[in-house]
Formats: sequence, structure tokens, C-alpha cells
Amino acid sequence: MLQNKAILVAGGDLRQSHLAKLLAAENRVYTLGLEKAEGLGDRSMTIAEVREKCAHFDYIVLPMPVGNEDSLVNTPFSALRLPVDDVLSCASADTHVLGGKFSDSLAEKLRSMGLRYTDYNHREEFAILNAIPTAEGAVQIAMEELATTIFGMNVCIIGYGRIGKVLTRTFSSLGAEVTVSARKFADLAWIRTAGCRAVHNDCLHEVLPEAQLVVNTVPVPLLGEELLTCIRPGCLLIDLASKPGGVDFTTANRLGIKTIWALSLPGKVAPISAGEIIYETIQNIESEKEAKR
Amino acid sequence: MLQNKAILVAGGDLRQSHLAKLLAAENRVYTLGLEKAEGLGDRSMTIAEVREKCAHFDYIVLPMPVGNEDSLVNTPFSALRLPVDDVLSCASADTHVLGGKFSDSLAEKLRSMGLRYTDYNHREEFAILNAIPTAEGAVQIAMEELATTIFGMNVCIIGYGRIGKVLTRTFSSLGAEVTVSARKFADLAWIRTAGCRAVHNDCLHEVLPEAQLVVNTVPVPLLGEELLTCIRPGCLLIDLASKPGGVDFTTANRLGIKTIWALSLPGKVAPISAGEIIYETIQNIESEKEAKR
Amino acid sequence: MLQNKAILVAGGDLRQSHLAKLLAAENRVYTLGLEKAEGLGDRSMTIAEVREKCAHFDYIVLPMPVGNEDSLVNTPFSALRLPVDDVLSCASADTHVLGGKFSDSLAEKLRSMGLRYTDYNHREEFAILNAIPTAEGAVQIAMEELATTIFGMNVCIIGYGRIGKVLTRTFSSLGAEVTVSARKFADLAWIRTAGCRAVHNDCLHEVLPEAQLVVNTVPVPLLGEELLTCIRPGCLLIDLASKPGGVDFTTANRLGIKTIWALSLPGKVAPISAGEIIYETIQNIESEKEAKR
Amino acid sequence: MLQNKAILVAGGDLRQSHLAKLLAAENRVYTLGLEKAEGLGDRSMTIAEVREKCAHFDYIVLPMPVGNEDSLVNTPFSALRLPVDDVLSCASADTHVLGGKFSDSLAEKLRSMGLRYTDYNHREEFAILNAIPTAEGAVQIAMEELATTIFGMNVCIIGYGRIGKVLTRTFSSLGAEVTVSARKFADLAWIRTAGCRAVHNDCLHEVLPEAQLVVNTVPVPLLGEELLTCIRPGCLLIDLASKPGGVDFTTANRLGIKTIWALSLPGKVAPISAGEIIYETIQNIESEKEAKR
Repeated sequence: MLQNKAILVAGGDLRQSHLAKLLAAENRVYTLGLEKAEGLGDRSMTIAEVREKCAHFDYIVLPMPVGNEDSLVNTPFSALRLPVDDVLSCASADTHVLGGKFSDSLAEKLRSMGLRYTDYNHREEFAILNAIPTAEGAVQIAMEELATTIFGMNVCIIGYGRIGKVLTRTFSSLGAEVTVSARKFADLAWIRTAGCRAVHNDCLHEVLPEAQLVVNTVPVPLLGEELLTCIRPGCLLIDLASKPGGVDFTTANRLGIKTIWALSLPGKVAPISAGEIIYETIQNIESEKEAKR
Repeated sequence: MLQNKAILVAGGDLRQSHLAKLLAAENRVYTLGLEKAEGLGDRSMTIAEVREKCAHFDYIVLPMPVGNEDSLVNTPFSALRLPVDDVLSCASADTHVLGGKFSDSLAEKLRSMGLRYTDYNHREEFAILNAIPTAEGAVQIAMEELATTIFGMNVCIIGYGRIGKVLTRTFSSLGAEVTVSARKFADLAWIRTAGCRAVHNDCLHEVLPEAQLVVNTVPVPLLGEELLTCIRPGCLLIDLASKPGGVDFTTANRLGIKTIWALSLPGKVAPISAGEIIYETIQNIESEKEAKR
Repeated sequence: MLQNKAILVAGGDLRQSHLAKLLAAENRVYTLGLEKAEGLGDRSMTIAEVREKCAHFDYIVLPMPVGNEDSLVNTPFSALRLPVDDVLSCASADTHVLGGKFSDSLAEKLRSMGLRYTDYNHREEFAILNAIPTAEGAVQIAMEELATTIFGMNVCIIGYGRIGKVLTRTFSSLGAEVTVSARKFADLAWIRTAGCRAVHNDCLHEVLPEAQLVVNTVPVPLLGEELLTCIRPGCLLIDLASKPGGVDFTTANRLGIKTIWALSLPGKVAPISAGEIIYETIQNIESEKEAKR
Repeated sequence: MLQNKAILVAGGDLRQSHLAKLLAAENRVYTLGLEKAEGLGDRSMTIAEVREKCAHFDYIVLPMPVGNEDSLVNTPFSALRLPVDDVLSCASADTHVLGGKFSDSLAEKLRSMGLRYTDYNHREEFAILNAIPTAEGAVQIAMEELATTIFGMNVCIIGYGRIGKVLTRTFSSLGAEVTVSARKFADLAWIRTAGCRAVHNDCLHEVLPEAQLVVNTVPVPLLGEELLTCIRPGCLLIDLASKPGGVDFTTANRLGIKTIWALSLPGKVAPISAGEIIYETIQNIESEKEAKR
């Protein structure tokens, strides 16, 4: 349990400001680059103030992603530039640096500075819990884009990894007719225990023609021309796969298939919940450290 | 089963144009005031053409609501004015006139013309099936307005009628923590069998302070100053109750509670599904007629 | 809320003894005819002791059913005979007599004695909550009798009243393929919102041939020879309908259909839960009395 | 797809006889040691008849487990002894031998005979699909042993592997209050996405005192004296873990905790479904062979 620590929270959006508030309940929290965020009060400081107030930080928390380039921290809640180096200048030898989606060069810099660091985006439980806002984001997009109810909708989900599993439950529980495709016999068995129709990836062409909504979660170029031509007019295609995505967007566009490539949904559709998930992941990181002591 | 009938579909939005397409699969369908709707082809006509093509209609289907005033049919898919009287002039003695939310004066006119008519909005199964798009519309609003996931959200639903029942299942199945208020012991028992927390309307003040989302379904002014002051900052209040609604909006506004009065959701969020529901209701009306013959 | 009352609990099985324990948490409880039940300690008395200990009872609670004949209370937890008249002799003018399934003659006797009485079996919320143990009892019977899992089983439920509704949810949530039959369009719509296949009672012959389990809840002789011949070999037929039941058992037997007429399941499969349901119903009876004062 | 093969099905119980019937729909099936099983007709033979009828078998299917000792096949549906060697004498060089829970010595014998063999009990999808009858078996035991409904019951499930996952869904969907314990943060996250309370194995002592039912799935001796003393009177403890089990049965017995060690539930509670699962697993084995050709 993270308690009585000195924590510097730097930059970020509503996820990060909510995270700062949650951490502040049991710790001394200072923030940089969040002066326009609500509810942080006098925890929001300039770097000069931070240095004056606190000589040693247990944790420095960077946002996810840290920055568009490595030199500046993302600061949508600030009018000021916040160089990464300024933030890291607040670190002591045993400060633990946290953040999401560290670039190789940032990781290299942290190593060269001799700082302990953890990219929480690499933690399994973080990815699992984020599957919930991701799935809800997909539901929201489908509700906004389609003129039919999710109830009774023929939905085809491609892939049964973390996001595929939560998508399957979410759409099923709303009353959709869900078909899920996967490659492994074990995954096909799990899909059936979830009460859904399971189909091998090789047989997608058999089920796509009935689908009113297709949600892809597999980050390989699966949906090329051959499969895209199976999709019926009016069907919506949501691609949740990270780059390069799973859809040949040029062909989809040419065929007139409405396609939405939706990335990083948790921070967009449910930033407060996403902040809570970061908070819990940080708690786990701390509890592992405690267990090792 | 509605088959081989001559049906005139007049005016209306996407619900009505989709209804016309569904009816056309087994019947001779002519449409008026839908010339900008897609997919109706040469079924879309002028009134002169209609009269020339078909001397006798089994059904005339007006939209829901029929019109803003009684004299003109709602025609969002047309650039032309469509007087109700012109449409009714196509009726024969045994034509059955259907539509939703007939005004008293329209009902009086139909009676005086000696025409059989049914307002499908008064049918129980129509209201039940429409509770699904209504509940999904409430979910969509909550997703759009709140920065947290529905999963884990503390949701308070007021009323356990048709819409309350479907809302309860929908929010529960998405993983919300659902409390439902009602008055009757029987309803409180049903709420508990649904796996939710049941609370008497008189005890709403005990549960409102925890709610992140309140959805009212009861069309009586229940949420006045006393209860509104129990609601915590940041909570969203969706009122699904028909006029006069269940919320004192002036006070809610003064207290800074974000309130959305969401009426007629099916036609807005899922017009194609809403058109199918009208279609099924008309099938039931026909099957009752057949049973009586 | 029932508090600080003097309550005499007479006769009954595990439901009644559990009810006595729940009541005893906040009230002075004395019991008759329960001397072999566990956990009642010195609350278990002879009628002489009861009369000596307590001059006035707020409530006398008889079991459900009260007795096989009107003269003796059901006392499976006692070696002694317990005449109803002995129990009622403990009543004062304002004692409220409770129990389940009062016979006409017992009701007449209570009226003639000028005693207030309530048959909790007639209360709506009691019937609703009892639908849960009834549905679980049906699941248990199906599990015990059939060599297949409920998951994936084709189940046909006849009737969508209280028990039909809870059965539908229970079997659906276990992954069965559930078809429900009803008569009213409104019920058929509700069945569909529950994600199940709805069929009119008149079309049962179309769905029965696929069923592996049929559960009847309608207390009219619906399942006669015509429908019974539609049922496939190996199908189990559970009749939950109270007398006269809904099945022509003679014909079912002749056709070799395994049929189980399962009545009064709550007291058999989950007597402790059934006792809690009686307890809650009595709380509601008391709260209505308080509201009237 | 298994088609037009010659298959010898030897020994076994209702699972095996049902499997033989399913295979017979598309293949030439002969059976040994199943002469008392229903519905196999003239497919049931003596070994002499088998040899005469069929010179080459594509598959020989032994039961699960094959036999109590290695020399004799389990034959509950036969009055005769069926030596394993007799069955294997029907094999040709390319016959594929299937069965469940092969002993080391049987595997050694098959290798020494140069026969291809697969123990389907080692396949992942087989274990996943069998989790369904296992979970239903646990529900049935709980229903039979406890006087309360599953609905509302406080259930503690230990372990979140295949069986733990399906148990969690099954008990949750019946309305139980489910807590699941696991060790890994990822599993704890999955448990929460399933809408259940997650607790680390190290904190079981905090949740056991509330449990009315404990179901263990972890095959390590977790439930020793320390944890067993946390369990409240009347709680039922079901151990689904394979040998050595997860419960110190001696101590549990001394403490008066009702404990049921339930192994091999699929074949006991749902043999027909278990036979179908074997059938599907064999189909997968065949389709993998076809893919390699």
C-alpha cells in the first residue's frame, strides 16, 4: 500500500490529474504541468516550488504517453512547456520513475541516469483492466454510428485476447448475437463456454456477411480485400488493434465500408476510470517492492 | 401475418422508411412524403400517382408522432407539405389507419369519417420492446457525458416499470452497481431477484448521495429540492419520464446538477430498430384481426 | 421493523425454526412443537410454560401449511401432538395470527374468534421471492435426472408468470437455449427482451420436439396427448404447476415420458432461504401496520 | 472432420457409448465391451467378430481412465473381461490409439508397439470444455447439501484457472455473492472484470469467515488448520482439486466441517455431455492431422 510517500506527478491529462488526487489521499503529492486541472489546489506548483518543498521523491509519475517527442512532457492542462529533463532533475538516486509507453530513448536515458523505472503499460493487470473502458468505448462508437440497437445486433469480434474477451462479454450481455474468431482450439473452446459462436480465423468469410458490426482486436493485417468484400453494406468496422492495425483502410474506403480506427480509448472515453487503473497498477508495483524487502 | 395487402405509408423519418421496406417484402407498399429516403425506389410517389395506382388500401400508416399540428403530416424526408386530409382521402370504407400518438382531434376526425384506426403507441408490447432502445440511449448518454466507465459505476434507477426493468438489466449486465427504487413490496422483491439493491422511494435520500448516475423513469415530480440536494457533485441525472418529467429542472440547474431530459430515444438512437418494433406491432394488430374473423 | 414484540412460533419444519431464530434477534420469541429443532435453546417450551411466561402475544406464527387437518398443527420437529386450538388459546384480543395456506375452516375459526390474521402465502412479494428457490429446485432436478449439462440444453418453459420469469433467467444464465411460451403479446415481448425465444402457446407443437427439458408452470391442463406426443424420447418434463397441474400424467406415463410433478420446492430444497422469505414477508406485514397507525 | 473412418471403440461408460453413437453418424464404428449399453445395436461385437469384420482401423478409442490396472479395460457396460492387449491386437501399423489418462506403462507399451497415440486428457480445449460439467456438478452438490439457495449465497472460490473461471461465471450468474482468490495480479484483475470480489490467496483468512460455500480448485495443500479454523459452522467445502487435493481432510473432519472431495465430475453428472466433449476433441485431433498432410 502506497502510504506516506513523496510523489511528483508531472503533466498528463484528466487521467493523470485524477491519479494525483487518488495518490494524495495517503501521500504527499506535488504536481507539475497540471495547473489548469481542477481540484489539485496548492499541490500544483512550478518546478522551483517543487524543488523548494521537497528534497526527495519516492516516485516521479510521468503521463502515458510521456510526450510527443522525448524532450517535452505532454501537458494538455498547462500553458507552459515542461521539459522531461526538468522533471527528472527532481529525482534522487532511489527515486522510482513511473509512466506509460516509454520510448526507447527515454528508457535509455533513465538507465544512464541510474534511475529505477517502470513502464506500467507493460504490466499485464494494467492491460486487463483497461480492456473494460476499451470495450465500453467500442460500444459507445457502435451506438453513435449505427441506427440499430446493440440488442439483437449481429456482432463479429476478431481475436480473443484481453480486449476480445472483455468485448465478448460486454456485447453479449447487451443482448448482441456475438461470433468470435480465433486461431487456437483452446480459445475456440473458451469462446463457447462464454455462450458465443466460435469460428476459426480461416472461416471468417463465412460469418462476415451476416455481421452488422465487426470489431477487430488483432494487430496483424487480417482484413484485406478478400475478407473486406465479404462485409455487407451498412456494416460498421471498428479496429481496436494498435499499429499497424488489422484493416486495409485504403481498400475498406474504396469498398465504401465505414471504418473507425479507435486507439487509446480508455483515456478518451473514461479518463477518470483510466486514472484509477493507473493508481491500482502503481499500488501493485509498490506492493511487489514491499514483498521483496 | 401481413401479406398481399395494399399499404400506404405516409411521412415519417428513418423509422417509417425502414418500416416501409419491411412491409414491402410481403405486401404492395406505396409511400408518400418519403422521396428523400433511401431504398424505396419507385414505391415513392405523389398523391396523384398513388390514387392512380391503387384504388383500395388495406392499411394507411401514419408516422409517430403524426404531425406537429393536425393538419400536416411530419415529413422530414420530403420537401413538400403533406396534409393529413390528402392522405386520408386515399382511404376506403374498410381501410385501417395506423399511427403513433394520435391527437384527440385526429382520433375524432377518424371516428367521424367512420374509419377503423389503431394508435400503436398504446399497445403494451410496443412499449416493452421500445424500452430496449430507450435503455441503450440512456447508456449512450451516460457514456458520452461521464468520464468513468459504466462498469463499477454506482447507478440509481428510479421506478421499476417497463423502462426501469430494462434499464436495470442493461446497466447491471454492464457491471454497474445498480440500486432501484420503487413503491410496491412486489416491485422491491422483483428488483432483488434481478440481483440489485432495492430501496423504497421514501428512502431515496439514503442512496442518492452515493450515485454517480441517476436515471428517473417516473412521470411524477419526485426529484424536488429535498432529494436534489442529496445528489453529489459530478453526478449525472437523466430523466426519461414523459411530460411533466420527474425532475424540478430549475432547482437542479441552480444546484449545478447536470440534467438531461431525454425523450423519444428509440427514434433518435436506433431508428431502424424502432421501425422494426413498429413493424412487429403492426403484425400483431393484423394477427388479432385474423383471429377474430 | 418488527422489534420488541412477543411472538409465539408454533410447529413447522426447518423454515419455521429458522424463522424463529431470525425473529429472536430483535423480539421475545417462544416456540411450541419445535423441541427437536436445533438452536432454539430455552425458547422451546411446552404450552404450559408458554402461558406462564407470556400473558400477551403480538403475533402467533403458524407454519405453512398449517396442518394436514385443521385440528393439528404440522410438527415434524416434535414427538407431540399440537392442537391448533391449544395454540390459539394463547391469543389475546389484539394478537395477529400469521401462517401459510390457511384452510377455509381455519380462516372461519379465526374470524369467529375475532382475531386478526394474515395468510402470507397470499402476498405478492412472498410468491415472487419464492420463485427463486423454486427455480433452483427445478435446476437441481434437471441436473439429477439428465445426463447432459444445463449449458447448451434446449429448455422449453411454459408460462411467463412469476415462476416462469425466474426460471427463464436461471436457465438462460446457465447457458441453456431457452424457449418460453406464453399467450399475451406483452409477455412474448418481455420474453424477447430477456434474450430468449418466445413462442405462442398455440405453437408449442413446433418447439417441443427439440426440447431436452420441458418445465411447465401453468396450472391448466395444457399438456395433453396432442402435445405430449411431440416430446422426444429422453426429454424430461417437470411440472411446477399447483393442482391440478398442467400435465396429463397418465398419458405421459403411457408414452414413456419421464415426468416429475414438483410442488412446494422452496421448503424442500432451500428451507433456510424459505424461512428468510417468510421473515421478510412478516416484516412487510408489520411495516404496513405501522404505516396505517 | 472425421469421416468414413474405421473406428474401434472399446470399453467405457455412458460417455464412451455416447461417443460411439456420435462417431457412427459419419464413420464405420465397432464396439467392444459395451454390450449392455443402449442404442449401439449390431455395432456391439465380440473381439472375434471385430477381427472378422474389419482388417484395418484408423482409430482405436479407449475410455478415460483406460483401466484400473493396465491389463484390463474399464467395462462397466459389460459382464466380460476385456484385456488391453486384446484391443491393441486389432491395431495396424498406422492405427491411431486414443484415450484418456494413459498410465506411463500403457504409453510405454504403445511406443514399443510403434503405435501413434494421443491422450486427449492432455489437450487444453478438452480441459476447458470439461470445466462446464465440473462447475455444474459443484452447483448440484451445493444444492443437494445446503438448505439455502445459491442466489444470495456467499461463495468463495479458490483458484482462477480453467475450473475456477467457469465456476466463477456459473455461481455469479445464479446470483451468488462470489469472492475468488488467486495469486497473480493479472488473475486478480480478471476476477474483477468478471464482476467478482478478488482476494489474494494470502488474505483468504479475511474472507473465509463469511463464506457459506468454499470451492477449492488448487491442487496444493492450501487449506490446512490455520485456514480451516476460519470457516464458519455450516459452511460446505467442496474440493475439486485432483490428488493430493487442496484440503487437510483429517483436520477438516476434526473441526466438523462438511467436506466433499469431488473428482471426475463430468463423467458422473453429465456423461452424455462429457462424451460429446471427447467427440469434439477427437475431431480437433483429426483436423490437426489433416492440416499437416
